[in-house]
Amino acid sequence: MDREKIAKELSFKTDSKIILLVIDGLGGLPRNGKTELETAHTPNLDRLAAQSVCGLTDPVFMGITPGSGPAHLALFGYDPTKYLLGRGILEAIGLDIEVGKEDLVARGNFATLKGDVIVDRRAGRIPTNVNDKICQKINASIQGKDGTGIVLYPGKEHRFVVKFSGKGLSDELSDADPQKEDKPRAYTEPLSPGATHTAEIINAFLDDATAILHDEPKANTILLRGFSKYPSIPSMKELYKLSPVAIANYPMYKGLARLVGMDVLSVGPHMEELFSNAEKHYKDYDFFYVHVKKTDSAGEDGNFEAKVQVIEEVDGYIPRLLALQPAVLVVTSDHSTPCQIKGHSWHPNPFLLFSSTAQVDHVTRFSERDCANGYLGRFHAVFAMPLMMAHAGKLKKFGA
Amino acid sequence: MDREKIAKELSFKTDSKIILLVIDGLGGLPRNGKTELETAHTPNLDRLAAQSVCGLTDPVFMGITPGSGPAHLALFGYDPTKYLLGRGILEAIGLDIEVGKEDLVARGNFATLKGDVIVDRRAGRIPTNVNDKICQKINASIQGKDGTGIVLYPGKEHRFVVKFSGKGLSDELSDADPQKEDKPRAYTEPLSPGATHTAEIINAFLDDATAILHDEPKANTILLRGFSKYPSIPSMKELYKLSPVAIANYPMYKGLARLVGMDVLSVGPHMEELFSNAEKHYKDYDFFYVHVKKTDSAGEDGNFEAKVQVIEEVDGYIPRLLALQPAVLVVTSDHSTPCQIKGHSWHPNPFLLFSSTAQVDHVTRFSERDCANGYLGRFHAVFAMPLMMAHAGKLKKFGA
Repeated sequence: MDREKIAKELSFKTDSKIILLVIDGLGGLPRNGKTELETAHTPNLDRLAAQSVCGLTDPVFMGITPGSGPAHLALFGYDPTKYLLGRGILEAIGLDIEVGKEDLVARGNFATLKGDVIVDRRAGRIPTNVNDKICQKINASIQGKDGTGIVLYPGKEHRFVVKFSGKGLSDELSDADPQKEDKPRAYTEPLSPGATHTAEIINAFLDDATAILHDEPKANTILLRGFSKYPSIPSMKELYKLSPVAIANYPMYKGLARLVGMDVLSVGPHMEELFSNAEKHYKDYDFFYVHVKKTDSAGEDGNFEAKVQVIEEVDGYIPRLLALQPAVLVVTSDHSTPCQIKGHSWHPNPFLLFSSTAQVDHVTRFSERDCANGYLGRFHAVFAMPLMMAHAGKLKKFGA
Repeated sequence: MDREKIAKELSFKTDSKIILLVIDGLGGLPRNGKTELETAHTPNLDRLAAQSVCGLTDPVFMGITPGSGPAHLALFGYDPTKYLLGRGILEAIGLDIEVGKEDLVARGNFATLKGDVIVDRRAGRIPTNVNDKICQKINASIQGKDGTGIVLYPGKEHRFVVKFSGKGLSDELSDADPQKEDKPRAYTEPLSPGATHTAEIINAFLDDATAILHDEPKANTILLRGFSKYPSIPSMKELYKLSPVAIANYPMYKGLARLVGMDVLSVGPHMEELFSNAEKHYKDYDFFYVHVKKTDSAGEDGNFEAKVQVIEEVDGYIPRLLALQPAVLVVTSDHSTPCQIKGHSWHPNPFLLFSSTAQVDHVTRFSERDCANGYLGRFHAVFAMPLMMAHAGKLKKFGA
């Protein structure tokens, strides 16, 4: 019996509430002997750690740097090596595009065709406003083969997402991208017999779009890759009998939450709104995923001071979450983003779980090194969900 | 998607270098309250531990005592419960015999036949020089059925390895060994229909060899077991894009390294040569497996003082490895060999990883007990490879 099946069989509905606060990219590396989190003044998180059980999590496995998709899936209890999210669906999620169960999406590039060959796979990185106009132009005149709906959604510079809507579309398709410059345009090829008709639809679209773009100076053709359909993931409601909600203000995280069946609240860009929305909607749900983005952004920028400051800002809101008196409050991260690396990393995530049923350990400071000595040890992030469920009194006994 | 497939997809070639120093059988048990490693004066290893991230590894799983084969496979990133090394191939490796992909090898015993029964399965433990002569005698006159090549390689006392070379040989064969004395000679039996022809070749050889040996006083027949072919293991180059080299002076470890596609340097018996060879060939490779054997030998002998002394000798060479400025230096062991047990044991291995991207923990002494409090916690040794690869900047992000 696998972990998911066990969760499904043992979980039951209660009134108790769980708050999962994800401080994106929290973990870091030392500067002058202290990490970003160790440098930050975090009296509330430290007091909370002293009353919690702590540990460190690996989202995929030791040494693996996860993207945001796999890292969040793990936190939500899904094995990220089982549920692989295609590039197309992640891009669509990142642009806040609604993708239906029957839709097929792909990541697109505008590119420059000269004679028979692609001379620039990024169309000279055309400005985003030009991209907007070209997408509108195609959307206005494109006719999908056999009545297939086709809509382009502009991204930044030369990037876009295309969504195909129809019946029986397959994502078992090769990329329609020559991968290198000075090669001819590439068509998609079906990777299974069931994808033949979809490939015909896509390839007709490639020709039609290229015809529409023939007088564009740079963006006169398109490349498509990462064909993907909406992934089939059992919902958190199905597995855990939860009524979950996401409180996040970046499209990627709202989209990831929708993938696992969460409701999503629209919140503004200020950190305070995450917490006021948790308060406002506290009676409506029993699982709250609250996502703080700016720690990760500061880490990506390599801005140590900014990351420290965001952590201190989050710390100030901890009393408001505690005032809601959840059965379980977890504070952790999806992955580490050390300023030294300026990107996601493989380092584990500090993790604390506060609950009246937690076995409080000796940890008195919320930091990477202190959590390493916590009671939970170092564990796979997929176990965060059963731990939260258990401490909230939402799991029956396994066997008799 | 499994660990190997993920490693293969994410790994890429860089110039950064990894050194894996394996101090064989390092872990031990206390005498007067201190293990061999705790007793040893190791200023260099301790200073290194204070600048590293530490932990403890289990080669197979908790409680399992590994042989050298499985223990090393785990360190090289291969699940030792997936890649099973037959007794024949391990013996062949231990005798430094070159085994081709088509060859079949088996472990052999000379035995004493009296009338119709085996009266001594070890032929009275004949001296090794007698074994040498008998092997030469058989090699000089044996003719394999259907042109099969047959060569015997003498081991110690009554032991030898036999190698069959031909096309389509199968290792799905039962042992040709009655297992007990006072039983008749045993023939091999095919364990699958595809092995029938190979069984005929082996059984003809058993009769021919017995005929050749008819006038030997003790070693007048042979027993064979552990039929095995060269195992099919993806190389470290294939999985990790590495150019790996083994610097070891015992055949078993050189053979294990060859199994996973490492180049092997010929080095003499002195410990210093391990390190001078690492220096000499440092520009030629990007992964260095350096193997110190004598800690294990001292442990097997139950010689506490000798083991302490070997550890102290290794400690003296640590500055020379650091002077090479590798991106990653790992110091660990394949398995424990406590003097108290006089053999391999199930106890975990102290592990330290030194790198500019390591999250340095509170450990300031390289010992079993101190490593237990390290940041890496207790982990399966197969994760040593992804950890080394990540810290050396040789792994892409998983998902987006």
